[in-house]
Amino acid sequence: MSFALDPRLAADTVPVAELALCSVCLMDDARFGWLVLVPRQPGLAEVTDLPAEARIQMWKEVEQAAEALRAVFPCDKLNIGALGNIVRQLHVHVVARREGDAAWPGPVWGCGQAAPYAPVERQARVAAVAAALSRPRS
Amino acid sequence: MSFALDPRLAADTVPVAELALCSVCLMDDARFGWLVLVPRQPGLAEVTDLPAEARIQMWKEVEQAAEALRAVFPCDKLNIGALGNIVRQLHVHVVARREGDAAWPGPVWGCGQAAPYAPVERQARVAAVAAALSRPRS
Repeated sequence: MSFALDPRLAADTVPVAELALCSVCLMDDARFGWLVLVPRQPGLAEVTDLPAEARIQMWKEVEQAAEALRAVFPCDKLNIGALGNIVRQLHVHVVARREGDAAWPGPVWGCGQAAPYAPVERQARVAAVAAALSRPRS
Repeated sequence: MSFALDPRLAADTVPVAELALCSVCLMDDARFGWLVLVPRQPGLAEVTDLPAEARIQMWKEVEQAAEALRAVFPCDKLNIGALGNIVRQLHVHVVARREGDAAWPGPVWGCGQAAPYAPVERQARVAAVAAALSRPRS
C-alpha cells in the first residue's frame, strides 16, 4: 500500500511544500490562514499509529509550519488540531486565528462554508508560506 | 512568576495526575472522555513558547494521555487540540470521540453545555485514567 493524499483533503487544499515526513497544504479558505500537514505514510489514522521517532518529527514539522504560518498571516492565536472525525487519514491542522475572525472564539472546524481564494492571492500565499518554511529556523 | 492552573480550567476539570511536565485533568463533562494537559510552566500561550526539548516531552505526554484515555473510555477516534482562544494558558485537549456522540462529527469545543459527572462516576473515571497513566508503556 502506498501513500496517497485523501481525495477530500486534496479537493479542499493546494500543495505548499514537502517536508521530511509531511506534505504541507494550504486550505483554500481565505477566511483563515490554515495549513494541513499530512504524514506521507499509508494507513495512519491516529498520531499513535506512527512510531515514536516519527511522532517527534511530525510535531516538529507542525511547529515549523506554525512559525511559517505566523510569518505570513496576521495571528493572535495559533490553533493546532488533529481531529479526523470526517477524513480519517492522519492530518494535523495549523490555523492562524485572529480575534473577531469568522469563527472566533470557536474552532474553525465545521464553521460555515469555505471562501476560496482568488487565484492570484492563493498563489501569493502558497509562495509566501513555502518561502517561510524554507528559511533556517532559529 | 510561578505556575498556577488557569482558574477557568480549574473550575471545569478535576485533577488526575502529574506527569513530568504536564498536569493532567479530566474535563467534568460526562458527554465525552476528555483530558486536558497543562505544562506546569508560567507564561506559556503557544506550543512554540516552550523550548524544543520540552515540546517533545509535552507531545509525548499527550500521546501517553491519549493511550490512557482510550483504555478507559469507548473511542472511535481521538481528537487532539491546542486552541486557547478563550483560555490563553497553554493547554492541550485529548478527547475520546464516539460516532454519534453529542458533537459528532464536529469538534467538542463550543458544543453545548457540559454535563457534569455524578460524583461516584467522576471519581471512578479519575482513578481509572490515573491507573492507566501509571502503567508502563509498550
